[in-house]
Amino acid sequence: NMSAEKCLAKGSAAPGPVPEDYIRVYSMRFCPFAQRTRLVLKTKGIKYETINVHLKEKPDWYLKKNPLGLVPTLETPAGEVIYESPITCEYLDEVYPEKKLLPSSPFAKAQQKMMLEHFSKVIPYFYKIPMDKKKGEDVSGLEAELKEKFAKLNELLKLLQKLSVQIYLYLTGSTLCLIRFLDGTPELKKWTELMLQDSAVKALMFSPDAHKAFFKTFLDGNPDFDYGL
Amino acid sequence: NMSAEKCLAKGSAAPGPVPEDYIRVYSMRFCPFAQRTRLVLKTKGIKYETINVHLKEKPDWYLKKNPLGLVPTLETPAGEVIYESPITCEYLDEVYPEKKLLPSSPFAKAQQKMMLEHFSKVIPYFYKIPMDKKKGEDVSGLEAELKEKFAKLNELLKLLQKLSVQIYLYLTGSTLCLIRFLDGTPELKKWTELMLQDSAVKALMFSPDAHKAFFKTFLDGNPDFDYGL
Repeated sequence: NMSAEKCLAKGSAAPGPVPEDYIRVYSMRFCPFAQRTRLVLKTKGIKYETINVHLKEKPDWYLKKNPLGLVPTLETPAGEVIYESPITCEYLDEVYPEKKLLPSSPFAKAQQKMMLEHFSKVIPYFYKIPMDKKKGEDVSGLEAELKEKFAKLNELLKLLQKLSVQIYLYLTGSTLCLIRFLDGTPELKKWTELMLQDSAVKALMFSPDAHKAFFKTFLDGNPDFDYGL
Repeated sequence: NMSAEKCLAKGSAAPGPVPEDYIRVYSMRFCPFAQRTRLVLKTKGIKYETINVHLKEKPDWYLKKNPLGLVPTLETPAGEVIYESPITCEYLDEVYPEKKLLPSSPFAKAQQKMMLEHFSKVIPYFYKIPMDKKKGEDVSGLEAELKEKFAKLNELLKLLQKLSVQIYLYLTGSTLCLIRFLDGTPELKKWTELMLQDSAVKALMFSPDAHKAFFKTFLDGNPDFDYGL
């Protein structure tokens, strides 16, 4: 795992081609969507390098690779570019067949993807609620919506467990900081605690304090993407 | 193709199990996300039945099948339920290998999925712009964003064509009514015109007048899901 940790901003020199036998992930250290892709890379033992991108002052060369300017983005030695978090994870699981993460049955696979989709719809609340709160707005409606979404995730998780389908690891990334919200949803809590024991998760996660510190700079409108380096 | 065209609303009786050798799609006749799934079913020659759902007064039995309450949803004779438009399309393409729509190369497949994702982000503008206009709000900002998104799609389409990758048919559904917006994006316009000659598209599409008439009832807050039946 070759990595240049400090993020590259507007005006930086474009990185060279991806070394043979490696894959590159463009990331931001605290981004839950990018964390999924990095968990897949780590779990499957893929040789990869990480380039962190300054998401407030994006380099022009990055916008040429991914016109949406979001992370994660994958790049291969052949210059192929893949983005959108679930698409990158599915791509990696297909190209690197060792340690398959998605089940081979089409229905079981669809269930994992549906679960991920549900989860992705939860993530924006974790940015919106604190931002609105900071602005002094009433967030009780948003909090009720979030609670409802967690309850649905909890139901789905029960269903998946009954079916003995293994939970797709890449859900994990985003769940790590949320454990304190999970008291009303025991299945989700149990599963999250289980994931926290996973070795790839342990290797990639930050402490809740580091997350909190980064998030504070984010709320202040001046995110410190290099926090802790 | 067995279909009960009129939509089922709250209080309706739940439909029975899906007949053997069939798959069922829960749909709304004018929904672009459901139209994709129906195009895949039609193009691949799959035996399916359609049940239309009243999206303003959803039946309780429908919310039990799909807690999000959205269309499309697929149901199999075994009672398996699959939803989220791209997930349903990928599921169908895996389970019914005849006439494969997605390429087998992981990168080419990822490109098709990325293109679809870009396109899905355009669809909400077609609801939001007219709704805001009706409320008397300034929509010039939204229109500029939409134009920008079309320009990006146009660039991506050029790239895909250069790579000789066939465009994944399920993009089509949503494009049909948009052709008048495509003067600044020649690749997208050319491709849309090509798609309009496809036999599955011809079989499933409504006239622009029917779309317009449905959309008027939608804007008035009382969508006539059975318009034209």
